[in-house]
Amino acid sequence: MKNKVLKVVKIGGKLIEDESKFAEFLNDFVALRGPKILVHGGGNLATEIAGKLGYKTQMFEGRRITDADSIKVITMVYGGLINKNIVAKLQILNENAIGLCGADGMSIVSKKRPVKEVDFGFVGDVEKINSEFINSLLEQNIMPVFSAISCTEEGVLLNTNGDSVAAEIAKAMSDIYETELYFCFEKKGVLANAENDDSVIQEITSEKYQELLEEKIISDGMLPKLHNSFQALESGVKNIFLGDFRLLNKESVYTKITD
Amino acid sequence: MKNKVLKVVKIGGKLIEDESKFAEFLNDFVALRGPKILVHGGGNLATEIAGKLGYKTQMFEGRRITDADSIKVITMVYGGLINKNIVAKLQILNENAIGLCGADGMSIVSKKRPVKEVDFGFVGDVEKINSEFINSLLEQNIMPVFSAISCTEEGVLLNTNGDSVAAEIAKAMSDIYETELYFCFEKKGVLANAENDDSVIQEITSEKYQELLEEKIISDGMLPKLHNSFQALESGVKNIFLGDFRLLNKESVYTKITD
Repeated sequence: MKNKVLKVVKIGGKLIEDESKFAEFLNDFVALRGPKILVHGGGNLATEIAGKLGYKTQMFEGRRITDADSIKVITMVYGGLINKNIVAKLQILNENAIGLCGADGMSIVSKKRPVKEVDFGFVGDVEKINSEFINSLLEQNIMPVFSAISCTEEGVLLNTNGDSVAAEIAKAMSDIYETELYFCFEKKGVLANAENDDSVIQEITSEKYQELLEEKIISDGMLPKLHNSFQALESGVKNIFLGDFRLLNKESVYTKITD
Repeated sequence: MKNKVLKVVKIGGKLIEDESKFAEFLNDFVALRGPKILVHGGGNLATEIAGKLGYKTQMFEGRRITDADSIKVITMVYGGLINKNIVAKLQILNENAIGLCGADGMSIVSKKRPVKEVDFGFVGDVEKINSEFINSLLEQNIMPVFSAISCTEEGVLLNTNGDSVAAEIAKAMSDIYETELYFCFEKKGVLANAENDDSVIQEITSEKYQELLEEKIISDGMLPKLHNSFQALESGVKNIFLGDFRLLNKESVYTKITD
């Protein structure tokens, strides 16, 4: 009997880098009642620090190639600097947070992305979420803050897409909880016109999603988020919301994904 | 009734940087039975990365001044890179480890070191260990791996001496467990002659400690470890051992601290 609602919230790196918006987000986040999980991205800080360290960031068709140097930087910046500072901020807001990556409790197990036309290096696709471990923390009112780093069965840390991590956690936890998934990013929601920030599509059903795909209305940046969302819905996630840093208080416009 | 023995093990940064010695240490560590906690230092990696980032490491009488840039690097390197890689290594040895700093669960609360002749910056002295939180993890067979970073009540992350962190954790946990404290570093133990690695003093009582102090036999580097050790003994820690990466299997020479 799933009576409790669990909220899984993904916050994008660009929002984390905007101090005032991020502070407002965190206040809304701690105000959410019931069990919750935060998943964060890293934004441009990793690239910036990699640059300072003299590491070249290789890209292929706009996608980062995570070489041995890059995964070190990502583990430092996402798993250390950003993650621990978010935890400290949440603690003084009386949220009993702990900062984790996929290696902690083997909570996010992944496989290295297979090499096709190009080897993306230390990049992982989620294979298994340790929902039992995560639930054991939640049941003690410990709130996990996850950086988007997963771990292989061989103990190799891998850079992993933050939206996918959030979606996979929400899917896995759906066996135990009624799960809601929130994607907080720099837009107010899914836009009908990428050029117009106010063209938010407020509700997207799977039917509507097919239309939008056929009409090629959805910008490339949004496609993975929507793909993750509908996959999550099919896997038992109850509600999915996309919006900006104000999404959690539901006072601004946002996109709701429903069947 | 304290029937369970808890082992708190501190490993120095130089050992972590020696891959084969560290691998041997980790094998002995996972072989230890019963609840345990690992505390690690960071060695020279933080200084090395700070240098690459173009940050100057300011020193005062041989002690590092932790400015705003330094604490960022320490949070990246100790709290992220080193901590998460240790956790991944332990997980594939079937040890259910999670990597924490003092902000996680507000487990290590500290105060900024007061400014006297010099301001050491973001350096903290431990005020309180959240033994209840740490015990709640241990009771679920979750093994905490702590980087030596503490957090103030105001949510500021502070660089903190790893030996002190280990000693303070051992002291605080002594209310619940029979606690043993292990300092694994690059020497075989406390040396009677700093020049001779084989001059290990195998047992030091508080009486013997006073003699050694008067005779100025103990090298400056060892003084804080011994000071921490006798403070910990007075605060209820049962046994304290100092030695190299082989200390845990007790097959090599080591120093035992006793009343």
